[in-house]
Amino acid sequence: MNKSSRRSFITESGKAAIAGTLILAANNTQQKEMKDMFIHHVYFWLKNAGSKEDLDKLTAGLKKLSAVKTIKQFYIRKPADTNRDVIDRSYAVSWLVFFDNGTDQASYQTDPIHLKFVEDCSFLWEKVIVYDSVGI
Amino acid sequence: MNKSSRRSFITESGKAAIAGTLILAANNTQQKEMKDMFIHHVYFWLKNAGSKEDLDKLTAGLKKLSAVKTIKQFYIRKPADTNRDVIDRSYAVSWLVFFDNGTDQASYQTDPIHLKFVEDCSFLWEKVIVYDSVGI
Repeated sequence: MNKSSRRSFITESGKAAIAGTLILAANNTQQKEMKDMFIHHVYFWLKNAGSKEDLDKLTAGLKKLSAVKTIKQFYIRKPADTNRDVIDRSYAVSWLVFFDNGTDQASYQTDPIHLKFVEDCSFLWEKVIVYDSVGI
Repeated sequence: MNKSSRRSFITESGKAAIAGTLILAANNTQQKEMKDMFIHHVYFWLKNAGSKEDLDKLTAGLKKLSAVKTIKQFYIRKPADTNRDVIDRSYAVSWLVFFDNGTDQASYQTDPIHLKFVEDCSFLWEKVIVYDSVGI
């Protein structure tokens, strides 16, 4: 691709920065360049385990939460059907979020959209485990 | 970008398929298209907690493991410096892997490279928790 085509491609893509980061991610030899990326993985257990209604409320809340500007990538998920001794499949929803760095994650914690999510949805869960990670 | 430029771009990128998937991921309105993507997140606790040598052995093993063909994206990580009640930062290493689907993940479990990793490295850890997730 020549330079102008590349510029055009980048302009066209609303999320070009992300795409670029993730192309790097896909290149094993360049993983070092992603060290700053902050991965925030949250698992929620519902008070009413098995309630489809509460699950829907929580996922709707997470969709709204995804509007936080510092979020670069997010995944709202449920347990897969894999089942081995080492697998924990007791949670209801997984919320996996990528930030550019720890500063952006800290800003997310106090973002009004995040505070509103906690206010609106925290009655739904009985347990939350968070795993925050950065490059080694 | 015109068609031929796009083709050129795609040809140039060895991981174009991944990049395409992740551009979709970045677009909230298109999340449904990623439902099949299988996220496999493993947390390792070392027998010799705090041993830099054992940490290095495990991360070296994971780097070799990343050669499994069905792995679309992977992250080898350590706990961030965040510290709240809900955060579990007691693990030593996090291994986050994206597969196109559950079939690819199942194939990874029995891949000779994976079996060799378990053979070479399982003496290092005392606990493993796995969270497998798919789209809701």
